[in-house]
Amino acid sequence: MCRFLLYKGKDSIQLAHLLTRPAHSIINQSFDCRLRIDTRRPINGDGFGVGWYESNPGPDNTPCIFASVTPAWNNQNLARLAEKIRSPLVFAHVRASTSGTLSENNCHPWKYNRLMWMHNGHIQDFNKIKRKLQQSLRDEIFLFVQGNTDSEWAFALFLNQLRDPQAERFDHETLKKAMLKTIEQLNIWAEEAGITEPSLLNFAVTDGCSVVCTRYINSKTEEAASLYFSSGTNFKEYKPGHYRMIKADKREDIVLVASEPLTFEKADWLIIPTNTCFVITPKFNVLLFPIKDQYYNSDRMKKRQSIVPPAVL
Amino acid sequence: MCRFLLYKGKDSIQLAHLLTRPAHSIINQSFDCRLRIDTRRPINGDGFGVGWYESNPGPDNTPCIFASVTPAWNNQNLARLAEKIRSPLVFAHVRASTSGTLSENNCHPWKYNRLMWMHNGHIQDFNKIKRKLQQSLRDEIFLFVQGNTDSEWAFALFLNQLRDPQAERFDHETLKKAMLKTIEQLNIWAEEAGITEPSLLNFAVTDGCSVVCTRYINSKTEEAASLYFSSGTNFKEYKPGHYRMIKADKREDIVLVASEPLTFEKADWLIIPTNTCFVITPKFNVLLFPIKDQYYNSDRMKKRQSIVPPAVL
Amino acid sequence: MCRFLLYKGKDSIQLAHLLTRPAHSIINQSFDCRLRIDTRRPINGDGFGVGWYESNPGPDNTPCIFASVTPAWNNQNLARLAEKIRSPLVFAHVRASTSGTLSENNCHPWKYNRLMWMHNGHIQDFNKIKRKLQQSLRDEIFLFVQGNTDSEWAFALFLNQLRDPQAERFDHETLKKAMLKTIEQLNIWAEEAGITEPSLLNFAVTDGCSVVCTRYINSKTEEAASLYFSSGTNFKEYKPGHYRMIKADKREDIVLVASEPLTFEKADWLIIPTNTCFVITPKFNVLLFPIKDQYYNSDRMKKRQSIVPPAVL
Amino acid sequence: MCRFLLYKGKDSIQLAHLLTRPAHSIINQSFDCRLRIDTRRPINGDGFGVGWYESNPGPDNTPCIFASVTPAWNNQNLARLAEKIRSPLVFAHVRASTSGTLSENNCHPWKYNRLMWMHNGHIQDFNKIKRKLQQSLRDEIFLFVQGNTDSEWAFALFLNQLRDPQAERFDHETLKKAMLKTIEQLNIWAEEAGITEPSLLNFAVTDGCSVVCTRYINSKTEEAASLYFSSGTNFKEYKPGHYRMIKADKREDIVLVASEPLTFEKADWLIIPTNTCFVITPKFNVLLFPIKDQYYNSDRMKKRQSIVPPAVL
Repeated sequence: MCRFLLYKGKDSIQLAHLLTRPAHSIINQSFDCRLRIDTRRPINGDGFGVGWYESNPGPDNTPCIFASVTPAWNNQNLARLAEKIRSPLVFAHVRASTSGTLSENNCHPWKYNRLMWMHNGHIQDFNKIKRKLQQSLRDEIFLFVQGNTDSEWAFALFLNQLRDPQAERFDHETLKKAMLKTIEQLNIWAEEAGITEPSLLNFAVTDGCSVVCTRYINSKTEEAASLYFSSGTNFKEYKPGHYRMIKADKREDIVLVASEPLTFEKADWLIIPTNTCFVITPKFNVLLFPIKDQYYNSDRMKKRQSIVPPAVL
Repeated sequence: MCRFLLYKGKDSIQLAHLLTRPAHSIINQSFDCRLRIDTRRPINGDGFGVGWYESNPGPDNTPCIFASVTPAWNNQNLARLAEKIRSPLVFAHVRASTSGTLSENNCHPWKYNRLMWMHNGHIQDFNKIKRKLQQSLRDEIFLFVQGNTDSEWAFALFLNQLRDPQAERFDHETLKKAMLKTIEQLNIWAEEAGITEPSLLNFAVTDGCSVVCTRYINSKTEEAASLYFSSGTNFKEYKPGHYRMIKADKREDIVLVASEPLTFEKADWLIIPTNTCFVITPKFNVLLFPIKDQYYNSDRMKKRQSIVPPAVL
Repeated sequence: MCRFLLYKGKDSIQLAHLLTRPAHSIINQSFDCRLRIDTRRPINGDGFGVGWYESNPGPDNTPCIFASVTPAWNNQNLARLAEKIRSPLVFAHVRASTSGTLSENNCHPWKYNRLMWMHNGHIQDFNKIKRKLQQSLRDEIFLFVQGNTDSEWAFALFLNQLRDPQAERFDHETLKKAMLKTIEQLNIWAEEAGITEPSLLNFAVTDGCSVVCTRYINSKTEEAASLYFSSGTNFKEYKPGHYRMIKADKREDIVLVASEPLTFEKADWLIIPTNTCFVITPKFNVLLFPIKDQYYNSDRMKKRQSIVPPAVL
Repeated sequence: MCRFLLYKGKDSIQLAHLLTRPAHSIINQSFDCRLRIDTRRPINGDGFGVGWYESNPGPDNTPCIFASVTPAWNNQNLARLAEKIRSPLVFAHVRASTSGTLSENNCHPWKYNRLMWMHNGHIQDFNKIKRKLQQSLRDEIFLFVQGNTDSEWAFALFLNQLRDPQAERFDHETLKKAMLKTIEQLNIWAEEAGITEPSLLNFAVTDGCSVVCTRYINSKTEEAASLYFSSGTNFKEYKPGHYRMIKADKREDIVLVASEPLTFEKADWLIIPTNTCFVITPKFNVLLFPIKDQYYNSDRMKKRQSIVPPAVL
């Protein structure tokens, strides 16, 4: 399975502080993942991608994406770009292929005008619902897809829920509704196809202002892929490779969401409960909504809250 | 536009004699094409591929494919493999992308069990017929496609014409019929979609024994992409980089088909007329069938026969 | 042979205006070069690189470099980065390998702390002087080289002329002297080795403030590789893909140097005479110094001044 | 650290049986290595290479090499070639970079005419002896090196010990002597440079007939990188992914040497003792010579003999 990370801050952050410098950065996670559910393929060496919005955008505030099929930990372009690029909103992803071949087209995140998307997990038996998904799409969205992953087609399905996916801005309610409809639709098709194993649907989407992500599994009993968040006023390197989230007061100037904690401080990270929709508003309010569909299980949610983040152990 | 080349011989040939050593090899053609119709993108630097069958196949006589997105002319793996690998049936292709992104998935040739396919040209306005094509396919063929080119989807359409595309062998009549039905179906969809510009459909397919290829355009007046063939008993290097096709007697032990001649000898090459299906039988009979559909034009065919191959000039 | 381009401006420019949008940009030049001296290898498809300094640098004002071995014209990362990155000082290079294998290590430009270097041309019979060059280097410079090109070793030789190549800043006189000593030393070794064919030494170096480049050949009679410059107040796109250098008054806010003109306006471009050292000072003074060594030929210089830039024809 | 594997057999083996099919193949080892000494970089994802000699060589019996910088476990070209290529003598290597950048030039094995070389380990503080090593080389060997790894320069040093490294054949005594002189020379330079940490020098070389390899460390007390061998008459897949070495009688028709056992049978594998030179003669005699230099330690050798191969546990 893959790993992802997202940052939204009032100030821009140098990508290196997210990607290359932290001892437990997403790139180091790419070869040392303690939380993997899927142990068959133990590393995330099948490409990576990072997408970001500009600090001072011009009229074209679409995100920029850098992706590569060579492993993130030895990519000199990434190492150099990460030292120079600063951004207030970053998505990053390392890939262990479960579906789709090794190709830049298959690297997350993807963008569609202002919108950017990534996925950690997989759609179970995707081949059984691929046709239905494609047939449900409007032409411009059907034709937009370049790769062959379940994750990119899920993005297409999400886009198809929006009235105007090319809009300049979306309110976070709109994005959240489209996200929930995407999951609902995937569940419907899974049931129609008689798929009994669950899908792992940790999705993240942003328009450059709001962020909506999910930690979700279409199962009442099994665990979703892990997802944590951290918020504060300063993401600070107190010694080389070691970071802490500083909380100067009650303000939240930075929100980080990640498959695994980036720091080794227990207090920095909170688990996002299974089957939750997690929203960061343009004004940095953090909202958690339980996804109360047929897979909702209040017991599971309580239990998982108490699990200690692994980088802390 | 792309370039392709195919070799079928009673004896195996070292790939270097086709790919890397001839002064006008397909790889040199990749940066020096005198016959291009499309002059907007003057080079074939968007990847290449070569597929071949073994000289002494075991029970698994599927072809082997080597493909890369770096330019063929500077690929050390290709240079080394070409010096070592010998095969009695070879497909090679250099790509200038007209559709589909730069990705190994988008490199020709493709294989499906015993069958191998490549295409020189493009399907005009492919996006307008992509859905119909996909919906026409049986599931296992729909799901087989990995890339996003018109050419690979055309292969899928071809496979869909065969009762059992996983068969061990096909007679050449079966392959030819499936090829003609593939073109016919593409024409039907093009008309339904109101596409007025023609498609360039030089396809080649083989099961390891027979070869069927086409030089085709769905236009009564315009030219198809060029296609030549040469046959004889020995493809001989008489001085470094310079080859001749030797015809020891009336036998045909070797047949070459290529977008452009590989040798500089006028007498070595014959043009395959526009809108022709060209067949090499397992016993090395070479058969040319005019494709007599609504785009057939007997005048055009006579005229083009007299054109001198360009490498000869 | 390769192509290079450099931009220095009072304002930052979006890289796309240099790299991807101009109809005769360096990337389009990579497959359509009208001025090539070397016709054996007609395209620059062996990798490319772009290096730039930040608009608002932090304490670490080293350049950032993005390089790739896949052709520039089909590199999605480059296309996306070029739309987003702005810089007041840019080096760009497309490569046609004359020495060194296809490898990111062999892509220009290279950097050493604040300094950035690129080369268009080749050092004749480099293998005959490689040992002497390496032995002349101080340890930290000898060990800095990662690739195997004559061009990167020439950069090492240049660095070795500087008392402190890790300095924060250099005055342009220092850079110019080191450049001339580099060429002088290469000439001495060429003579010692009895090399009779000339080298093409169009070098460019910058510390982020000054730029020094050369158009040079160690021959009294032969032509150096082409080099042009253009200066003005605004590099303006007057219709898609078509640019003009606007000269609002006598000021020079922008200086472009390129192997071939980027615009189609004759008046925009001046030839840099053969065997000239071309300097852009931090205050945008443009200085041309004839290199008056044993290969100086005043007749040749006059003659070449009159040649019309090729993109204008 | 890296992993390597070599096969020499009376019969050719399909590469897949060594590379891709065994559950504990070198490629699976690339992300699941139980024996790594160096735990800082836990995976071998920095490229790989495989080199082989032909079953029925023509006059040019040089090896063929396929190398790539993308991880071995997701390389479709490798997967396809491994199913088709058969060879009586194979070297394979997966790389975790300790020295040298990510580049095909830096992938093992390398070849020089008939000779092929690979290395598992590293030369400690290579930068301190690099100049001396280079200066000791004859010109044609100095100029042959393309990459920037300690391992390739060690190959150059080895070649320099041979009177005629371009010879058609070498007796195994000659190769063994050159190997021991290579190690001796590296030790001399390490001492001169005051390097106190040991080097890990597991080298392998072949001319296509004999194989010479070493398990070596220039330390009296520390462990060398692991090395095992297995010999028998048939390397048999008894269930998918699971192999056994069959020993039909006393004959040795197959010898395998590997950083880690490929099978899970304890009896299949013997440890090569630390500081041993291991030779396979053209007639399949297997010879072990202790390297009795200043680092020889008879106690250590006895102790290590008893260690159980890890794949067996």
